[in-house]
Amino acid sequence: MPIDLTEHIRNVPDFPIHGVQFKDITSLLLAPDAFAETIGRMVDEAAQRNVDCLAAIDSRGFLFAAPMADRMGLPLVLVRKAGKLPGETLNYEYTLEYGSNTLEIHTGDIEPGQRVLIVDDLLATGGSIQAAAQLVQDAGGVPACVGVVIELIGLHGRENLKDYDLFSLVTFEVDE
Amino acid sequence: MPIDLTEHIRNVPDFPIHGVQFKDITSLLLAPDAFAETIGRMVDEAAQRNVDCLAAIDSRGFLFAAPMADRMGLPLVLVRKAGKLPGETLNYEYTLEYGSNTLEIHTGDIEPGQRVLIVDDLLATGGSIQAAAQLVQDAGGVPACVGVVIELIGLHGRENLKDYDLFSLVTFEVDE
Repeated sequence: MPIDLTEHIRNVPDFPIHGVQFKDITSLLLAPDAFAETIGRMVDEAAQRNVDCLAAIDSRGFLFAAPMADRMGLPLVLVRKAGKLPGETLNYEYTLEYGSNTLEIHTGDIEPGQRVLIVDDLLATGGSIQAAAQLVQDAGGVPACVGVVIELIGLHGRENLKDYDLFSLVTFEVDE
Repeated sequence: MPIDLTEHIRNVPDFPIHGVQFKDITSLLLAPDAFAETIGRMVDEAAQRNVDCLAAIDSRGFLFAAPMADRMGLPLVLVRKAGKLPGETLNYEYTLEYGSNTLEIHTGDIEPGQRVLIVDDLLATGGSIQAAAQLVQDAGGVPACVGVVIELIGLHGRENLKDYDLFSLVTFEVDE
């Protein structure tokens, strides 16, 4: 029997704000078989695409992108919250589900024309991923694909990211 | 020739504040051979110890602990900044090199008596790691060992963590 990843993702009601059903991946990290299955499936999806490096979104994206980079032998670029990257950065401010945020990328971390797979734990409205894609492009790369473990259906995330080749491992329906 | 990891760790002067020589691991992540060597050496060190699970410190610790957990097939517990974990948490406030911080752990993520390896990218004074060790203990685990990629010599980190079996892959001398 294949592992059902949805059984390893805990639902936490009213986090971080009232009315949100938060999908918690910490329960997945505690189950080595389920975590290995998750990374294996992410790598299989990534391997079907033509990518030169991975970009991980701060900070839950690190948990999936780092093992993927390790298994695939690909460079790992960080897309971080403001003020975290020590070198020269490009930045992008955007609105997300629960407020606003600024993401940054180091100038020079992506070689010109490199095809980048953007990795995060979860797709909701797609705000963070759109910001990351813009940063990848500003840094000279091609934001070719997006890979997430969890896709929330009903928040227009896939529609907002229609310019990119998007894959997800599991989906949950949510109210808008 | 073995890979010299120190060559892949960039020094950024005056980050995050004037006078600090920041050790930047993003350059290491960009070099797949060096990153694989790093994870391999961390896993070799961990395998010589009797550990049941890994605890990763938010957020650069995630970049090393997640691939280690993936390679070793061990559960991965997150020690996160305040407000990030959705479930019931224990928390611990502490002073660190550039200010103060609160770390949290989910209650119930560690089984009673589990021997835990705490993983972070860097040891400076050891404040975050001491906080993580206290949280592991409060959560019912045994904070048996600590593993970091980089150890800064001259800030009393190893002395402050003398109760734990500590390993590091590379060291840099810094002024107090």
